[in-house]
Amino acid sequence: MTAPISEQLNADELLESGQRKMEWARQHMPIMGSLRESFEADQPFAGERIGMAMHVEAKTAILAEVLAAGGAEVAITGCNPLSTHDDVSVALDAVDGVTSYAKRGVDDKEYYEAMEAVIDHEPTITVDDGGDLVFAIHEDYPELIDTIIGGCEETTTGVHRLRAMDDDDALEYPMFAVNDTPMKRLFDNIHGTGESSLASIAMTTNLSWAGKDVVVSGFGYCGKGVARKASGQNANVIVTEVDPRRALEAHMEGFDVMPMDEAAAEGDVFITTTGNRDVIVEKHFEEMSDGVLLANAGHFDVEIDLEALEANAQRTYEARDGLQAYEMPDGRRLNVLAEGRLVNLAAPVSMGHPVEVMDQSFGVQAVCAREIIQNGDQYEAGVHNVPDELDREVAEIKLEAEGIEMDSLTGTQEEYMDSWQHGT
Amino acid sequence: MTAPISEQLNADELLESGQRKMEWARQHMPIMGSLRESFEADQPFAGERIGMAMHVEAKTAILAEVLAAGGAEVAITGCNPLSTHDDVSVALDAVDGVTSYAKRGVDDKEYYEAMEAVIDHEPTITVDDGGDLVFAIHEDYPELIDTIIGGCEETTTGVHRLRAMDDDDALEYPMFAVNDTPMKRLFDNIHGTGESSLASIAMTTNLSWAGKDVVVSGFGYCGKGVARKASGQNANVIVTEVDPRRALEAHMEGFDVMPMDEAAAEGDVFITTTGNRDVIVEKHFEEMSDGVLLANAGHFDVEIDLEALEANAQRTYEARDGLQAYEMPDGRRLNVLAEGRLVNLAAPVSMGHPVEVMDQSFGVQAVCAREIIQNGDQYEAGVHNVPDELDREVAEIKLEAEGIEMDSLTGTQEEYMDSWQHGT
Amino acid sequence: MTAPISEQLNADELLESGQRKMEWARQHMPIMGSLRESFEADQPFAGERIGMAMHVEAKTAILAEVLAAGGAEVAITGCNPLSTHDDVSVALDAVDGVTSYAKRGVDDKEYYEAMEAVIDHEPTITVDDGGDLVFAIHEDYPELIDTIIGGCEETTTGVHRLRAMDDDDALEYPMFAVNDTPMKRLFDNIHGTGESSLASIAMTTNLSWAGKDVVVSGFGYCGKGVARKASGQNANVIVTEVDPRRALEAHMEGFDVMPMDEAAAEGDVFITTTGNRDVIVEKHFEEMSDGVLLANAGHFDVEIDLEALEANAQRTYEARDGLQAYEMPDGRRLNVLAEGRLVNLAAPVSMGHPVEVMDQSFGVQAVCAREIIQNGDQYEAGVHNVPDELDREVAEIKLEAEGIEMDSLTGTQEEYMDSWQHGT
Amino acid sequence: MTAPISEQLNADELLESGQRKMEWARQHMPIMGSLRESFEADQPFAGERIGMAMHVEAKTAILAEVLAAGGAEVAITGCNPLSTHDDVSVALDAVDGVTSYAKRGVDDKEYYEAMEAVIDHEPTITVDDGGDLVFAIHEDYPELIDTIIGGCEETTTGVHRLRAMDDDDALEYPMFAVNDTPMKRLFDNIHGTGESSLASIAMTTNLSWAGKDVVVSGFGYCGKGVARKASGQNANVIVTEVDPRRALEAHMEGFDVMPMDEAAAEGDVFITTTGNRDVIVEKHFEEMSDGVLLANAGHFDVEIDLEALEANAQRTYEARDGLQAYEMPDGRRLNVLAEGRLVNLAAPVSMGHPVEVMDQSFGVQAVCAREIIQNGDQYEAGVHNVPDELDREVAEIKLEAEGIEMDSLTGTQEEYMDSWQHGT
Repeated sequence: MTAPISEQLNADELLESGQRKMEWARQHMPIMGSLRESFEADQPFAGERIGMAMHVEAKTAILAEVLAAGGAEVAITGCNPLSTHDDVSVALDAVDGVTSYAKRGVDDKEYYEAMEAVIDHEPTITVDDGGDLVFAIHEDYPELIDTIIGGCEETTTGVHRLRAMDDDDALEYPMFAVNDTPMKRLFDNIHGTGESSLASIAMTTNLSWAGKDVVVSGFGYCGKGVARKASGQNANVIVTEVDPRRALEAHMEGFDVMPMDEAAAEGDVFITTTGNRDVIVEKHFEEMSDGVLLANAGHFDVEIDLEALEANAQRTYEARDGLQAYEMPDGRRLNVLAEGRLVNLAAPVSMGHPVEVMDQSFGVQAVCAREIIQNGDQYEAGVHNVPDELDREVAEIKLEAEGIEMDSLTGTQEEYMDSWQHGT
Repeated sequence: MTAPISEQLNADELLESGQRKMEWARQHMPIMGSLRESFEADQPFAGERIGMAMHVEAKTAILAEVLAAGGAEVAITGCNPLSTHDDVSVALDAVDGVTSYAKRGVDDKEYYEAMEAVIDHEPTITVDDGGDLVFAIHEDYPELIDTIIGGCEETTTGVHRLRAMDDDDALEYPMFAVNDTPMKRLFDNIHGTGESSLASIAMTTNLSWAGKDVVVSGFGYCGKGVARKASGQNANVIVTEVDPRRALEAHMEGFDVMPMDEAAAEGDVFITTTGNRDVIVEKHFEEMSDGVLLANAGHFDVEIDLEALEANAQRTYEARDGLQAYEMPDGRRLNVLAEGRLVNLAAPVSMGHPVEVMDQSFGVQAVCAREIIQNGDQYEAGVHNVPDELDREVAEIKLEAEGIEMDSLTGTQEEYMDSWQHGT
Repeated sequence: MTAPISEQLNADELLESGQRKMEWARQHMPIMGSLRESFEADQPFAGERIGMAMHVEAKTAILAEVLAAGGAEVAITGCNPLSTHDDVSVALDAVDGVTSYAKRGVDDKEYYEAMEAVIDHEPTITVDDGGDLVFAIHEDYPELIDTIIGGCEETTTGVHRLRAMDDDDALEYPMFAVNDTPMKRLFDNIHGTGESSLASIAMTTNLSWAGKDVVVSGFGYCGKGVARKASGQNANVIVTEVDPRRALEAHMEGFDVMPMDEAAAEGDVFITTTGNRDVIVEKHFEEMSDGVLLANAGHFDVEIDLEALEANAQRTYEARDGLQAYEMPDGRRLNVLAEGRLVNLAAPVSMGHPVEVMDQSFGVQAVCAREIIQNGDQYEAGVHNVPDELDREVAEIKLEAEGIEMDSLTGTQEEYMDSWQHGT
Repeated sequence: MTAPISEQLNADELLESGQRKMEWARQHMPIMGSLRESFEADQPFAGERIGMAMHVEAKTAILAEVLAAGGAEVAITGCNPLSTHDDVSVALDAVDGVTSYAKRGVDDKEYYEAMEAVIDHEPTITVDDGGDLVFAIHEDYPELIDTIIGGCEETTTGVHRLRAMDDDDALEYPMFAVNDTPMKRLFDNIHGTGESSLASIAMTTNLSWAGKDVVVSGFGYCGKGVARKASGQNANVIVTEVDPRRALEAHMEGFDVMPMDEAAAEGDVFITTTGNRDVIVEKHFEEMSDGVLLANAGHFDVEIDLEALEANAQRTYEARDGLQAYEMPDGRRLNVLAEGRLVNLAAPVSMGHPVEVMDQSFGVQAVCAREIIQNGDQYEAGVHNVPDELDREVAEIKLEAEGIEMDSLTGTQEEYMDSWQHGT
């Protein structure tokens, strides 16, 4: 059985570093700060147990401690074998009301054992990033489902999996699709994934964006973010898509659109954001130039077919920290960042999404968790959109924290918007 | 009773000019060209009567002639007293199967009489831009409703009015909300309204965007388009909003966000895109600098309170074609473009949305009209979203016309997207 | 002999329209306003005669009247047969101290006769836009050179001609290269040419920039402006160049760079800004797609080989105002805007550079004219850079007019910038 | 006396890491690769000794090895106490013909001792980055000046110091101002400084640019780069300047311009690029918000007055690696990155300018060094601009390496550009 992280590692050495990281995050997460205040006063989670499987680094830690501050008993583990910051995990484990099992570099067996340790707390709420926790519960611990009130899912990919479960009538408690809210999609995906993926690639390689041909696969919210931010650094962006409207949208923003079969020979850098598998495969490797960079900004490490690349390479070596070079028989070197895992999380220099955008996503997580407690009985089993007023609530907290004022509708204006008896 | 336009005006003088304009539009509307081919072959509208109230200029004329080519008897009038191009109206009236009653510069009485002339054709399908036609029918010709199969509405504002009717159970036949489709919102509103509003303002004033403080009211699709395109011309953009998430979205794109009470003193140019009334009112005029420009890119001319401006001005004069100067008692001059009507339509130099974006919107209109005929009985009275496959169909036609190729999902990829039994 | 414009045209009809245009320009030219005040007080040009050959429209008229306000006798004609606004020419002719000979649509003979009429005033200062006036004087009126103190030239092309003359020792009085100043190049060329060329093309064609492949020939200041502003409207920009550093600069900004032989087949719109001839020639026309737009934003109408196009076309017709269609034997239509002349001046909807950027250029012209009077004897015959302090003076006037404050160097900082005895 | 780095550190541990870094740089520096080939063949530096004081990391190492490949004996040390990568220094020291004395974290005394060790090689050519080497020679080793043929200087700041020396007639051998070439300024300063400064700040802080108010001090080439790239990441940029034309240029690009006294209260992030001292001082610290970031992208660490900050803080602590927090008496925390040194070099995650832009700068350095040998006697003592044909040569090498083709002038075009006898 997996033990809490503080019993696994030399906590003393890691604690201060983890606390320092959490302190930095705390300072730059005004939404969480505001929610902590109200949760401390109201104790909405008193008596509840919250199980979490997320990327355990400083920002997530603040979400966990804010839920704990609201009265919950929180148990957490990682949702990716490489994304845990051990020092943060230790510092989080030291927080009152939180137990952390997350450790970096676990193998598959350890990964699922840590998840079981979380499940062993018999959570009444689950918070997921990718869906592994909710899936493990449905698969292996169906007896727990009765006592689970509901849960939240953070990512596109996780929501996709949940909807597929739901379509099969296999999802047995209500889950909020946090990923699909405006507050998540518009900020986390566009700004968070966009900025942090590019900065991670730049810092891992010491290369420049200016004048580079950057192939972005997928023009969903993440792809838009990557494409626009790359363009904002003077890259020449090429988009590949499978959806005609997104393809057209990319074209109308001024990006080149073409199939990957054609883009393979054009790109200097390739960034996948599709959430699908086999986006870049053997036939594409054959077309690529010497020195290309291959990175993934989608959830799972299946977008670039690394097995095929490995099989075709005559030699592979770590050319830089976090960058594996595959030397092809003809001498071309294809450089894969972060083993094809989420480049903004798994590259050695990476720290995941920027603090501020996670503040927004986690703000939605926190108010959804509160909603589950307060009104959980009103939601049937299945995937639920986050109620609009919760999403708006988080936006309002953020604007207030930033000191941004808006207009408000006058009575006359509200009436006008509701009326229809007026003509040209 | 309003007569067809060719009987009202000296058609001979206007015909060639109108036909030349239509020819230009036809060349740059590949989606309409493709649909014409299939409609000519299939005659989906044989025996149907289509009543239209739209901005009658060259692009709309192509929609009308394509519907007529599909077998419809089309009757059309304007949806705005100032937006009709008389030469195009004459040329359209000369098209087989089309009768046009639209004339520029009509007064209120004439405006509604022309609408009645259209209604007098007893349309089986209605196509609206702002909702005036559907509203007139419900108000004054309820006896026609039984024979109307359905209709389409082009604009945000019109859809808003229809939804309000629908909420009151007052909408008695099915209407497609064309405005709400991705193909409309993402292209027409963002690129069409954005580019054409700015170009109209620049050409009316001979002024530059570089370094200007441009206040954009509303950060919906139109507002986003105006704000981004203005920023792309090196303006410094300030956004006013009433919705917290849109305000936050504007802030996160790097725009200043503030209430109009504050923005009034900051702006060099003000562009309203809210769809609401009284966005810029008396207290704002008082704060504005000498020489500001005031323009509206929302549907109706109610966003800027011109009555209050008129009442406060000591003198007004036409400073340029399409630009009225209001001289305040303290000598400041506030310059209103196009009488506060849609600046990209009503300014003298304006020709409305660019041809290509209207090709997309009208492509959706045309396939929706076809859907009404083919499957109209499947839609209840009320507002309906455009079925996604129709919207996709138009996107695919466009991509093909542009020679843009995409990827398509492999069987393995489709399976992956549908599955959920796989973990990290 | 050419008579003043007021004697050629029915002045009464045109005067008010011209005065209204000048009034608008005057309001938006704060630099000229500030200089007028000082010139009226100081009368720097008392007793001088200033000959001008410029695009005679509202902004230029303000320069002429400000010079006249400083005591000069001003005689002016056009520098392009199509760019004169007759109403402004009439209104300018009515200004005290100014005689205007400029008329729109003159033939070659009339064009040079009007120039002779200006020369007949025996100017002591010449102000040129393209160099025609200074060249005519050197060629045909060498006897006047002795009494000419100096002159100013506005454009890249004119300065280029003057430098060529200077290299041949053929330039016999001092000329300020106004074009080469930061205040001209950075604002007029980049923002002025960029914005107004694009707006002119958009309004002439009613087409959109979003998603268009726009080929920009030349990546000097004008080309940079056109390319960046087009990109800011979501066009996909392709640059052609003959200079390796500019080519590299375009590449590093993220634009595609290729030879015109290749770009010809790619572009939807072609905009020349090179100042050279034969940029787009017969072999390129053969490669172009149906419906392309061809426009010139360089000084002379020699960049696109219209003779070859005419010779190859099977039919030509005016497809829109200001747009001539050339139908090739294979049916493709190539559309030339404004007869290949400066599109932001010669298109029917065009009004030349925006008012504000001309305020800056003309500010430099005005202080250079003052410098010629005050210190003309210190300049030898030949091309001279505008003294840096004059250019700075204009920048300071503009900042003050815009209410923009800056930092100023402290004594310690000035000392630091001048010192070199400090290490790492 | 300072020993070569390999004798100071445990070379075995560092060698492989340094060589791996150099190999990566070598792969992405096509200009250096091309020059190495020609230098190896021609041995232009046979018998020469080149003394270098530069940031010793992988890219610089490639310059040093290319010069050595051309026959030079190269001695190198750092030009900044914190910017040396020890592993690269060791690997470089192991290159034939190169001795490296550079070590990270030296104190002032060690810094100058290492410089003396370089000087002890009695260089015939000096290559500087900031001017410390040339200054030390003039100050302390005037006897060497006779045998020095010439040198190159890389930075704005160094050139500034050299020009000040030159104005005092104190510079006694010819120095090429590499910094001032188009190939350096347009790419290294704009793209290199811009991208790498922002990525360093983002990765050091895990914060986002979207929606941040970023104050950029100085709108020279570096400042333009930082401002534009920050804007490209959706920051709201505020510029402070002391030069009216640059201030106006910033304003016309759409940035806010204001004095630092005002900007201090507005900014979330402050980035100095002025090359001057005391840009942000005590009175500004007082106005700043809690949590601001302070970073320097100018050469020396004098732009932010850290002494005053230290004196005013009640507590300071390292909040993150490379980020010192200064807690003010009122509780506000001001966060200084990289001790106020060049943030893109001195932050722990930083690797200096991107490889590709240094390839261009160093290409100019290398051909200038070659020019000194080939034509050094044609240059007098003092600062010299890099001959234009050398700068062009490097651009051409780069374009060829990137596979970018250009147009070339026809005979008719060249003649046209040289002629002036043609009119409108």
